[in-house]
Amino acid sequence: MTLPKSVVVREVGAREGMQIEKGPIPTAEKIRLVNLLSECNFPEIEVTSFVSPKWVPQMADAEQVATGFTRKPGTEYTCVYLNRQGLERALAVDTLDVKAAVIVSASEEFSHKNMRRSTEQVLADIPDSLAVAREANVPVAYLSVAAAFGCNYAGDVDLGAVIDRFTRALAVAADAGVHIPTLLLADTMGWANPEQIRRTVGEVRERWPEHDIRMHLHDTRGMGIANAYAAMQLGARDFDASVAGLGGCPFGGDHGAAGNIATEEFVHMCHEMGIDTGVDLDRLIDVALQSESIVGHSLPGKIMRGRALHTYR
Amino acid sequence: MTLPKSVVVREVGAREGMQIEKGPIPTAEKIRLVNLLSECNFPEIEVTSFVSPKWVPQMADAEQVATGFTRKPGTEYTCVYLNRQGLERALAVDTLDVKAAVIVSASEEFSHKNMRRSTEQVLADIPDSLAVAREANVPVAYLSVAAAFGCNYAGDVDLGAVIDRFTRALAVAADAGVHIPTLLLADTMGWANPEQIRRTVGEVRERWPEHDIRMHLHDTRGMGIANAYAAMQLGARDFDASVAGLGGCPFGGDHGAAGNIATEEFVHMCHEMGIDTGVDLDRLIDVALQSESIVGHSLPGKIMRGRALHTYR
Repeated sequence: MTLPKSVVVREVGAREGMQIEKGPIPTAEKIRLVNLLSECNFPEIEVTSFVSPKWVPQMADAEQVATGFTRKPGTEYTCVYLNRQGLERALAVDTLDVKAAVIVSASEEFSHKNMRRSTEQVLADIPDSLAVAREANVPVAYLSVAAAFGCNYAGDVDLGAVIDRFTRALAVAADAGVHIPTLLLADTMGWANPEQIRRTVGEVRERWPEHDIRMHLHDTRGMGIANAYAAMQLGARDFDASVAGLGGCPFGGDHGAAGNIATEEFVHMCHEMGIDTGVDLDRLIDVALQSESIVGHSLPGKIMRGRALHTYR
Repeated sequence: MTLPKSVVVREVGAREGMQIEKGPIPTAEKIRLVNLLSECNFPEIEVTSFVSPKWVPQMADAEQVATGFTRKPGTEYTCVYLNRQGLERALAVDTLDVKAAVIVSASEEFSHKNMRRSTEQVLADIPDSLAVAREANVPVAYLSVAAAFGCNYAGDVDLGAVIDRFTRALAVAADAGVHIPTLLLADTMGWANPEQIRRTVGEVRERWPEHDIRMHLHDTRGMGIANAYAAMQLGARDFDASVAGLGGCPFGGDHGAAGNIATEEFVHMCHEMGIDTGVDLDRLIDVALQSESIVGHSLPGKIMRGRALHTYR
C-alpha cells in the first residue's frame, strides 16, 4: 500500500493514437507530434508501427515518420512490429531504439481475431521470434499479456488465464535462454476495474517478484486513471499513456476502444501525489492541446482545459 | 481497505449541470431530464436551485421545473437554496423533499468569493439557518465543507482547515440542539488527488465515526473516478454524481470547473466491483446520451460511447 516514489511513463500516443484515426494525418504532422513530445523529457516515446499498410493504412508512412523526427538525448524512440518483415523495416531506418516484445493473449478469441493464431500457435512461435531478435541483436524488452482483464469477444477473462500465459511464455523464453525483464499487463479493450487491477497486479508481483510490471490501460469506460492508481498501490511503476488520450475516437461507434489513459492526467496525478515522473508537465499539456489540431478533432483529456494545479500555487 | 457492499448515488446533474450551461435550456427539456432520470431508480435526484435569477439566470425557471416533473415513488426530489427566501420558494412549490444543509468553506478566500462572508460570519449565521429550518419543519441533511481539497483562489487547502470547519460547525449545531447526520466533503474546484482523499476521509471518519461521509467530486483534472474509488477504500458510501458529467463546460475557459464525476461511470465501476447502487445502469446510459441533445453539446462521459461491460457478457 505504499505508492512508488517514481514511475516510468512511456508515451505511446504517436503510435497508438495514429493507427486508429479515421482521417489521414499528414506525415509532417505525425513528425511534428513526435518532436513536440520529445521536448517533454519522456524516457521512451513510441514513434510508429511497422505493420502491413494493407491492414493499417494509417501506418503506411512509418519509414518517413521514423526518419523525419529529431532524436533528443535521454529519450528512447521505439516502435511496434509484428513479424520479421516489420523488424527488418524498423532496423533499416536506423533511427530507432529497436526492441523485441513477446505478446500473447489471455483471451483465446482475441488471439484468433487479432493475431490470427491460437494461444498454442503463438506460444509455439516464440522461439523463432526470440531467435530473430537475437540474430538482429535486439533486446527483448517485455512479455505482454493482451486482453488481460476482459475481451469484447470472450467477455470476462479469468486471472488464471493471465497467470497461465505468463507462466508458459516465460518457460518458453527460459528454454531459449532468454530472460524477459518486464511483464506487461494490457487492458486492451478497457475492461479492467480497480479491484481487478489490484488482484491481478498483486498476484503477478507475488509470483514474479524479480520482474518489473508494466501497465497498458485503455480508458474506454472512464476507469483508466483509477486503474493506474490501483496498480501503483500494488507497486506497479511503469505505465504506457497517450497524450490527450489519443488512441480512440471518443465520438466513434460503441464498439470502439477509447485511447490510453491521457499522459498529462496521469503525470499530473503522480506529481500531485509526490510521485516523480521526470516529465515536463507544462510542455506536455501544451502538446495535448496541439494534438487536437494534429488529429483534427477534440480529444478526451480534461486537464488541458482545466489547468494543472501547480499553476495556481 | 474493504470496499462497501453498497453505496448511495445522488444524481445532481439536473441542478448542478444546468446552472453552468451557457446557452438557455428550454424549461421543457430540464423537466424531461428529471423525468428521464426518474426512470433510473436513484434514491435522490437534485431537481433545481432556488437562487437569485440575477446571479444564476439559468435557474430563473426553478418553480416551473419543480412543478413540471412527475414524481416517482422511491426517489427523493431535492433542491438547493441559499437563504430563507430560497427555502420559502422551495416549500411553496410543494413537490419537493425539501431539506436544509449547512455549508462552510475550508478556504477563507472561497468563502468570501462564493458566499460573500468570512468563515466567522458563516459560522455565526448557522443558528439562524437552523432555526429557520426548524420553523419550516425541514430536516438538516448534511454539513458540507466546500473547497475541502483545494481552491482556485487560495491554492492548497490544509486538512487542518477541513477538520476545523467540521469541528466548529458541528459544535454550533450541537449548541442549537441539532444533530447533522452526514458530513459532506466537497471538492468544489477539482483539486483532490486519491491520496489526499484517503487522508481526508480517513481522518474525518476517525474523528466522527457516528456520521456518514458524503463525497461531492468534480472531475476537472481527470482524477474524479480515482478519487471516488479512494474514498470507497476508506469507507465512504455516499456520492454525488451528474449524468454524463454534466456540470462543466469541457470546452470552456481554463478556469472552468468541470462537472461532477459522470454518474453512469461511477455506477458502472461500482457494479463491476460488486458494489450495489440500486441504479438501472442501462437506462442511465441512455439518459446520458440524451443529455447531450438536451444541453446541445457533447459531454465528457465515456462509457455512453464505449458500452457497459455487462452487455458483452
